Amino acid sequence: MAKPEIDEVGQRFLAVPGQPFDLAARDSGDRVLFPDKKHARKSLQSDAAAIDELQDLLYATQERALLIVLQGMDTSGKSGVIRNVFAQTSPLGMQVKAFKAPSKEELAHDYLWRVHKAVPPKGIIGIFDRSHYEDVLVVKVREFAPADQIEQRYEQINQFEKHLSENGVTILKFMLHVGHEEQGERLKERITEPHKRWKFNPGDLEDRKLWPEFMAAYETMVERCSTPWAPWHVIPADSRTRRNAAIARIVRGALEDMDLAFPDPGLRLEDYDFS
Amino acid sequence: MAKPEIDEVGQRFLAVPGQPFDLAARDSGDRVLFPDKKHARKSLQSDAAAIDELQDLLYATQERALLIVLQGMDTSGKSGVIRNVFAQTSPLGMQVKAFKAPSKEELAHDYLWRVHKAVPPKGIIGIFDRSHYEDVLVVKVREFAPADQIEQRYEQINQFEKHLSENGVTILKFMLHVGHEEQGERLKERITEPHKRWKFNPGDLEDRKLWPEFMAAYETMVERCSTPWAPWHVIPADSRTRRNAAIARIVRGALEDMDLAFPDPGLRLEDYDFS
Repeated sequence: MAKPEIDEVGQRFLAVPGQPFDLAARDSGDRVLFPDKKHARKSLQSDAAAIDELQDLLYATQERALLIVLQGMDTSGKSGVIRNVFAQTSPLGMQVKAFKAPSKEELAHDYLWRVHKAVPPKGIIGIFDRSHYEDVLVVKVREFAPADQIEQRYEQINQFEKHLSENGVTILKFMLHVGHEEQGERLKERITEPHKRWKFNPGDLEDRKLWPEFMAAYETMVERCSTPWAPWHVIPADSRTRRNAAIARIVRGALEDMDLAFPDPGLRLEDYDFS
Repeated sequence: MAKPEIDEVGQRFLAVPGQPFDLAARDSGDRVLFPDKKHARKSLQSDAAAIDELQDLLYATQERALLIVLQGMDTSGKSGVIRNVFAQTSPLGMQVKAFKAPSKEELAHDYLWRVHKAVPPKGIIGIFDRSHYEDVLVVKVREFAPADQIEQRYEQINQFEKHLSENGVTILKFMLHVGHEEQGERLKERITEPHKRWKFNPGDLEDRKLWPEFMAAYETMVERCSTPWAPWHVIPADSRTRRNAAIARIVRGALEDMDLAFPDPGLRLEDYDFS
């Protein structure tokens, strides 16, 4: 079986800009495009290799940056995506920013201040492991900011992303959509598997208790912030391999769409002195 | 044939702290430890995989950072080392800083100001692609600063690195030692090979004309700044594969020497509510 076309993957998981979005209608266990796990793994491998080559081009041309935003509940696999989709890409062309709770200095600024600083420069693939979207997710669910301020943020974010996209940054946003049951299993693994214990944070169970509130916040975020210039893709994340394979297809497609070519400044050996 | 012991690699290429250093006595084409290229490649592969696992530990424990400083003439392979030694390491645990000519803001500060900002935090492997050592290399050769100021810098750098090492940062410094003839070939490749043309910079040929002056500056740098807490290794770089293999062995050794173990906070499933 061949791997699915890039457009097919993109379309299946896209939240169409300007249309209502129903998160409950998205199956976190969807395997339609990658029924076979082995094929998904192969697809991932070859896309990761292609992404590496395309990244060389991105770096050589210095025309555009690619910003990848990853959001999802705990255990949905943000780190796993970073590790596996970019496994073959040189660290020289990558920049990962993990957004944690803001510092005092960051809190003294508007919520996009620290985000703007972390935007990748031209030539680089930047990954946001969490992002400004926390400011309409956990901040909303836990009421860390007044409701009317949060309400303004969707449009502010859209305008901020529009600005970036008009200035050389291609933006891809992925919601890693893990099911409630699967998350429970994965959180338990963080206790039962010795090498995962360092990841266990009792606070994750507190977020889990607010699952419906978080899902509602995610739904609103996707519906209001999936734009033509920075679309949201909602990726089924109950299967790690298929999740990675789907994202790798879409990332590869975005890089190919940039249609970059190695610069050829028309150099001639005889014009230079190599002695 | 087995791969060489880590200690053997470290010792062969070390510039012994406190002892005179003779760069001319180091063969940029040395193949003694890796006579066979295929074995070197295998050694590199297995060390790159080990580095990936050790990096997970570094990240999980958050006790130490590893700072790797890469210096070398153009084409000596700084990018190649970053790509190949850390090919399997997750970008989440890596941070690469390429130092270019300083900005106006940077020039308004002391030369270590921008360097200190770029030091990797605990849990992270940071790579400096060029570094503060440019301030005793190109700055010295081209006389961008007065000689007496440059003379002070060796000890300032040693003290700065001592401070870092006493505060959780393990430091490894690699001079990629490429021969004059080999560099000439590689610079020509940047014209003859279409995919390398974007790398060609006529300024590199200007530096090449000052080869003896650069070699003298490198020699002084290594002799005066190889310290017990931040040693210089001088790596033969005429063979890309052997260069990468040697560095991977030493990096692996440094991570193993940290003797890290996954934290085990003694968690019990029954203490938590996963519903």
